[in-house]
Amino acid sequence: MEYRVEKDTMGEVKVPADKYWGAQTERSRNNFKIGPSASMPLEIIHGFAYLKKAAAYTNCELGVLEESKRDLIAKVCDEIIAGQHDDQFPLVIWQTGSGTQSNMNTNEVIANRAHVIAGKKMGEGEKTLQPNDDVNKSQSSNDTFPTGMHIAIYKLIVETTVPGVKHLRDILDDKAKAFKDIVKIGRTHLMDATPLTLGQEFSGYVAQLDHGLKALDNTMPHLSEIALGGTAVGTGINTPKGYSELVAKKISEFTGLPFITAANKFEALAAHDALVETHGALKQLAVSINKIANDIRMMASGPRSGIGEIIIPANEPGSSIMPGKVNPTQAEAITMVAAQVMGNDVAVTIGGMQGHYELNVYKPMMAANVLQSARLIGESCVSFADNCAVGIEPNLKRIDELVNNSLMLVTALNPKIGYYKAAEIAGNAHDKGITLKESALSLGHLTSEEYDEWVDPKKMTGE
Amino acid sequence: MEYRVEKDTMGEVKVPADKYWGAQTERSRNNFKIGPSASMPLEIIHGFAYLKKAAAYTNCELGVLEESKRDLIAKVCDEIIAGQHDDQFPLVIWQTGSGTQSNMNTNEVIANRAHVIAGKKMGEGEKTLQPNDDVNKSQSSNDTFPTGMHIAIYKLIVETTVPGVKHLRDILDDKAKAFKDIVKIGRTHLMDATPLTLGQEFSGYVAQLDHGLKALDNTMPHLSEIALGGTAVGTGINTPKGYSELVAKKISEFTGLPFITAANKFEALAAHDALVETHGALKQLAVSINKIANDIRMMASGPRSGIGEIIIPANEPGSSIMPGKVNPTQAEAITMVAAQVMGNDVAVTIGGMQGHYELNVYKPMMAANVLQSARLIGESCVSFADNCAVGIEPNLKRIDELVNNSLMLVTALNPKIGYYKAAEIAGNAHDKGITLKESALSLGHLTSEEYDEWVDPKKMTGE
Amino acid sequence: MEYRVEKDTMGEVKVPADKYWGAQTERSRNNFKIGPSASMPLEIIHGFAYLKKAAAYTNCELGVLEESKRDLIAKVCDEIIAGQHDDQFPLVIWQTGSGTQSNMNTNEVIANRAHVIAGKKMGEGEKTLQPNDDVNKSQSSNDTFPTGMHIAIYKLIVETTVPGVKHLRDILDDKAKAFKDIVKIGRTHLMDATPLTLGQEFSGYVAQLDHGLKALDNTMPHLSEIALGGTAVGTGINTPKGYSELVAKKISEFTGLPFITAANKFEALAAHDALVETHGALKQLAVSINKIANDIRMMASGPRSGIGEIIIPANEPGSSIMPGKVNPTQAEAITMVAAQVMGNDVAVTIGGMQGHYELNVYKPMMAANVLQSARLIGESCVSFADNCAVGIEPNLKRIDELVNNSLMLVTALNPKIGYYKAAEIAGNAHDKGITLKESALSLGHLTSEEYDEWVDPKKMTGE
Amino acid sequence: MEYRVEKDTMGEVKVPADKYWGAQTERSRNNFKIGPSASMPLEIIHGFAYLKKAAAYTNCELGVLEESKRDLIAKVCDEIIAGQHDDQFPLVIWQTGSGTQSNMNTNEVIANRAHVIAGKKMGEGEKTLQPNDDVNKSQSSNDTFPTGMHIAIYKLIVETTVPGVKHLRDILDDKAKAFKDIVKIGRTHLMDATPLTLGQEFSGYVAQLDHGLKALDNTMPHLSEIALGGTAVGTGINTPKGYSELVAKKISEFTGLPFITAANKFEALAAHDALVETHGALKQLAVSINKIANDIRMMASGPRSGIGEIIIPANEPGSSIMPGKVNPTQAEAITMVAAQVMGNDVAVTIGGMQGHYELNVYKPMMAANVLQSARLIGESCVSFADNCAVGIEPNLKRIDELVNNSLMLVTALNPKIGYYKAAEIAGNAHDKGITLKESALSLGHLTSEEYDEWVDPKKMTGE
Repeated sequence: MEYRVEKDTMGEVKVPADKYWGAQTERSRNNFKIGPSASMPLEIIHGFAYLKKAAAYTNCELGVLEESKRDLIAKVCDEIIAGQHDDQFPLVIWQTGSGTQSNMNTNEVIANRAHVIAGKKMGEGEKTLQPNDDVNKSQSSNDTFPTGMHIAIYKLIVETTVPGVKHLRDILDDKAKAFKDIVKIGRTHLMDATPLTLGQEFSGYVAQLDHGLKALDNTMPHLSEIALGGTAVGTGINTPKGYSELVAKKISEFTGLPFITAANKFEALAAHDALVETHGALKQLAVSINKIANDIRMMASGPRSGIGEIIIPANEPGSSIMPGKVNPTQAEAITMVAAQVMGNDVAVTIGGMQGHYELNVYKPMMAANVLQSARLIGESCVSFADNCAVGIEPNLKRIDELVNNSLMLVTALNPKIGYYKAAEIAGNAHDKGITLKESALSLGHLTSEEYDEWVDPKKMTGE
Repeated sequence: MEYRVEKDTMGEVKVPADKYWGAQTERSRNNFKIGPSASMPLEIIHGFAYLKKAAAYTNCELGVLEESKRDLIAKVCDEIIAGQHDDQFPLVIWQTGSGTQSNMNTNEVIANRAHVIAGKKMGEGEKTLQPNDDVNKSQSSNDTFPTGMHIAIYKLIVETTVPGVKHLRDILDDKAKAFKDIVKIGRTHLMDATPLTLGQEFSGYVAQLDHGLKALDNTMPHLSEIALGGTAVGTGINTPKGYSELVAKKISEFTGLPFITAANKFEALAAHDALVETHGALKQLAVSINKIANDIRMMASGPRSGIGEIIIPANEPGSSIMPGKVNPTQAEAITMVAAQVMGNDVAVTIGGMQGHYELNVYKPMMAANVLQSARLIGESCVSFADNCAVGIEPNLKRIDELVNNSLMLVTALNPKIGYYKAAEIAGNAHDKGITLKESALSLGHLTSEEYDEWVDPKKMTGE
Repeated sequence: MEYRVEKDTMGEVKVPADKYWGAQTERSRNNFKIGPSASMPLEIIHGFAYLKKAAAYTNCELGVLEESKRDLIAKVCDEIIAGQHDDQFPLVIWQTGSGTQSNMNTNEVIANRAHVIAGKKMGEGEKTLQPNDDVNKSQSSNDTFPTGMHIAIYKLIVETTVPGVKHLRDILDDKAKAFKDIVKIGRTHLMDATPLTLGQEFSGYVAQLDHGLKALDNTMPHLSEIALGGTAVGTGINTPKGYSELVAKKISEFTGLPFITAANKFEALAAHDALVETHGALKQLAVSINKIANDIRMMASGPRSGIGEIIIPANEPGSSIMPGKVNPTQAEAITMVAAQVMGNDVAVTIGGMQGHYELNVYKPMMAANVLQSARLIGESCVSFADNCAVGIEPNLKRIDELVNNSLMLVTALNPKIGYYKAAEIAGNAHDKGITLKESALSLGHLTSEEYDEWVDPKKMTGE
Repeated sequence: MEYRVEKDTMGEVKVPADKYWGAQTERSRNNFKIGPSASMPLEIIHGFAYLKKAAAYTNCELGVLEESKRDLIAKVCDEIIAGQHDDQFPLVIWQTGSGTQSNMNTNEVIANRAHVIAGKKMGEGEKTLQPNDDVNKSQSSNDTFPTGMHIAIYKLIVETTVPGVKHLRDILDDKAKAFKDIVKIGRTHLMDATPLTLGQEFSGYVAQLDHGLKALDNTMPHLSEIALGGTAVGTGINTPKGYSELVAKKISEFTGLPFITAANKFEALAAHDALVETHGALKQLAVSINKIANDIRMMASGPRSGIGEIIIPANEPGSSIMPGKVNPTQAEAITMVAAQVMGNDVAVTIGGMQGHYELNVYKPMMAANVLQSARLIGESCVSFADNCAVGIEPNLKRIDELVNNSLMLVTALNPKIGYYKAAEIAGNAHDKGITLKESALSLGHLTSEEYDEWVDPKKMTGE
């Protein structure tokens, strides 16, 4: 491989000749061989590109950066956002906990790429832009990395998580409406209980997701606060007056998202409770999703020896050995996602609790977990919605059979004959293997007409 | 011990003669010998008392319960709320997951106590009130237990958690203001960084708690939704028309808290995402608290071989072997609380994810964990505030020594001489063990006057 | 209330006149009002009594304590172990993280009680024993507390956890043997699969618990290492020569358990990986238990609209509103325990990861969680075994019906006619709602005689 | 893109013409667009290759597969193990929870690649090998996937995790020996305590890792048990006699690792407690690592305003804004790894607890988490060892200054003058800001000669 020489304050480093990155990126590549390379999420790199561009515009507007430099920086940032340089960011999550090396990776790529755009040859002549003095001007890793991660997460939630969950919510809501007159046996403790409609059951799922979306939405204001302008420790050292507010405004413009400058920059660098908060809501969604998918796979179990109340789409052969088998594979994928998100929540929590003094140094790990959870939830909801939920059909024959057979219809008799006599009827039917009505009449607690009037599964659903 | 005979639908049971509880409570006592007895939180029992009273009033107003029965029920409930019967609830958390046995414990105690209030002898004559038909009228364990736990948790958060956290927040805010002019060394990565004021540092803690309180507040609307009226599976079977809304109104009146009837009763029985949501905010507070307490004990470390920038109150001898030792014991207690809350969060999550069909059967465990976390956070904040935070004093001599000695003041020179020359000055000072100024002058990058003007710790804090 | 005056190195403190504790206990009571009082587990206090007695004997044998003092200390320790002073330990878990205050509580109670045993009046005259100089001789909180917690946990696991799990294991093994010839439908992905015997299914549960018990046993050697002799920081300062080994031998004698002195005392004070390790095994048992109890409640679901393959004991009325309902309440209790243990595991992990320098200061919290998990697992296994598992009966009629009806018997044909033709038979039967045999014959892939020979559920189980 | 048509029991599917995979892989690609493609760990695919080869050899030896087919299968498996087909496995973790689709992916790739090796054109003519009937012979996804994941995990632990941890352990042990005479101040509760040697401190780290390695080793026997031979539900349906033992023997031969057939196949399919167990040990290592790295970064803090007792290598510029800053970046990377592993533990736990009946369907998620943790721990230990630990140097000047200045040397006086007088000396020194000796003499509790004899930091370490 061919190399060129780059240098930083510690000296010279050999860098692959065709790469835009510089000395500090290369040092990090060599010093942190932990897990697959380039594991630092690209969403964060793109978040960096937004903020570097915004900083350049702000620095220029406030008189500390020339227009020509601003334009060069902005041009490279646009290229990065467009995905043209995704292979220029080889660093891993498991680097310095401030993400300094990924900040420098971005600064170096921008500087070297700008050099080339400016018509020069990489590695030759004086750098058109200085990574630290120009690209990183009025910035520190300590405020850029958290800003980059807020941009990345906010964007992903808005673009992937929320639409994905809403899509599933809407499909389930359609089902709730379509199934509103289908009376079925209820189950509590996994045991037969009083009836409800299949639509009512699905309406509970919709309510869960509505609550989850609300909970997620509640966390967005904290996430919209960005650290940029705090620089090294939150004081904003080396930033021009008015910088924080203006750079937040620029980021908001460039991303189309409502970012504001953090009210307290010390909190914004030293703690990432905003990520803890947002991931808490993602975890709540995982909890909800798990409940829903579990119910659906249990209700679809069978085809002959399970519950079998609903039929889910057969998307692929289910078994390499059992011919003809169909499995609730989408439910399995999404419940695995739920488990992962619950695990990620602990990782985020442990990262969040350990900020020391002016800086939390668990940033890349925390951000990577939040991004993974946000993406997995959004995409698994779409997958589950489109490949499973939308195709759910009731097995009406089975549903009727089960509801009519149930002993728990006896509950309707409580207000008429009291809990004790009702229990006697149910127990007698259970012991003798007869129907409720047979039991009720044989015990003489009510007449056949009364039974038919009082024990009506449809009425018991309140619909 | 003397016994009397009680019975339920399964037959007769011997019960301690002097206890108000009945057959089902006694069965549960015998069947669930898991952990210490009476572990079911009293807050939930008191929550039950509020709702049983509200149900009696509602049933009466809607014409399904006589006034005399209503009054008897209400009288016993008031006694329970006043704490007069705390020894009548011997059951454990580790019972049926619906909490049915604690619901029946409450029904039985109310019925038997009412019998005595009505002037009769316990165990003799026909019961004045029937536990199932009267006390539990228009109710099921499936809607009462979640209602009881929402009441218990909401109340505890309002009365203990929020005031406790606010108290700590206010004390820290006082400190932030008192310390606003004390310039100290900043630390990032635990390493020396640019200066900030001690007040700025504390303002970050205040911001964390403010965000945490907001996050907790965001979860209260979900928690204010109560399940009562859903009865067995959410359909409201065996409730009179208008019951749900009216009973929520009564509960709101009796507790003075803004409870409303849950918009979707199926969700309210089958899922406890509201508890997952609220505990998520408690966990966020635990994360914040851990950061704050950790910082404070590190800054107070010493007295001679640590950081020693602040002095915390000496509340007790710190060591059984090392004479004169003083330790940050309040920080230790509150960080242990934080760890417990983070663990509880996982227990609540695992309980929440597993509702099956129409009922989540992890209710007692979930509620007990949320209540423990809510209490521990509230009370540990008060303890930490009153026994530690309020007495924090800056060690001015030490603070000055450390800030003036720091190499990171060099950062102020970036905009003047560039990052590279600044790095050279710092590196040279470090290698030679000299001051920054000595290094700067010896390298010839600036004059003595320039140095004194540009490198001013106070200015670097932006205050 | 009446008080007497006690003092420590910080001065005088008023203590309830009738209590044996002294100044430092009272300070802690006042300074740590967090959660219910006396939450420090008594098992740890009793563990302290064992070690204080052992230390007294060792100190005497090594010539640094008089016999008369040894005997006084030993006498009070015996009383504490016998449970006579349980009300003398009012402190909470949420105190100093070294447990110093509970160590001093023990020292003070021993000293004051010894004073009384020596015929003097509490609070009067010179103390017969000095809490620090005599009772705590050759000790520090830093080595006594971890020793006390190891003793407490080891004992509880040996006396409660292991016997409880083994009891459940044996009951399940009895069932596995009793059910060995009952052929039933298998289920994978919750969907019908090839048959197995009910005994085979239960044998899997037994194997899980056997593995879990082995895993727990693997952790006991680390737990058997005790810190005593390390004193303040692990160096053993202020201990006589030979102390560590001898005191471990005494503890081993007094408890009848194989404790040894920790090979590395620095690890034994600064890290509690032994607790992390042991709790990891408890968590594994919780995972196993959850699987087993879940299976059992699903197989017992019904009575008419569920799986209904097994019948579990009806221990109590299951519902306050649905007459005649019976629920898998023991499964619910034990799965709630499992969830709690999984949460506790995170609390223990978070405590364990944070030792700083020479001391981990999350001791009381860690120990309390391990003790709770150990007790809950042991006791819930007994409860589940005796109130549920032992009474499990197969519902043979239902089992036969389901196995014979299953389409997955087709798998037996793979080696005869290939996976594709077998799939065609199963798919055809499913689509037309006919039996496998009808389908097989109608497609002409085999003869009636071949079908009967090849498709034999019993043979498919390999038994 | 060009396509060819493949088919399975559900019909035809278009597949990229140049790929070896078939219909079922393509269906999964389309149905599970969740997260990045090809996230199924390659280690598992390679594990599959080992077992498919072993199964072919076993089937041949037991007379159910022709030699020519065996050789073709073996040849492709060798290619897969050599990494020649890594781009043929595009599926994600978030698929069916049994991993059936990755099993079929492997079967399809082997069959199609064998077709080409056999000199035919892909997609043309009758398949040389049938994916289900030949490649998957005597197998099911239900026993192959767990076997594949055990192979993958066992191998990774043996090749990466254990050597990585041992490497760090050895480096730390070297340091413990090199530093054995360096007396330094001890710290408990972060506060000054009695002295110990730097070597003693490091010996505690070594002991932690030794215990962790032992704990990990304890889990290997369970992990060495493989499910192969259980086929669909554990009964071994459609396997020839003697298959289980022989195939395990072959796998053991091919991998060089001590795999054995699982004693109970029902457990091996339905539960993955072996993964829970192994990950529990990985989590324990994470706990240890976190403690060690935390200590090291605290001791290295400074350079001028921290603890500064040790000096760690300066590997890269630490700040984009603060010139000359050096940070403990390796400690940050490895503590982020620790946090991730702790989170992964919860994901594995949640997956493990939810096996239903005969199959746990959280396999890919569980395996992926265990593999990630095993790799991250191994590689981060190497990175931390080589880029940080090996270069740790004591700052002798600073160490001496701190130890000599400490008030806790007073502890040595306890046995001479009692705890109370010693406390008085320390308190007096603290209040007046004088040395211990000055204080001791001024209070008249001992002579200058006594002080010098009794208070000797070196002796206090017991070395």
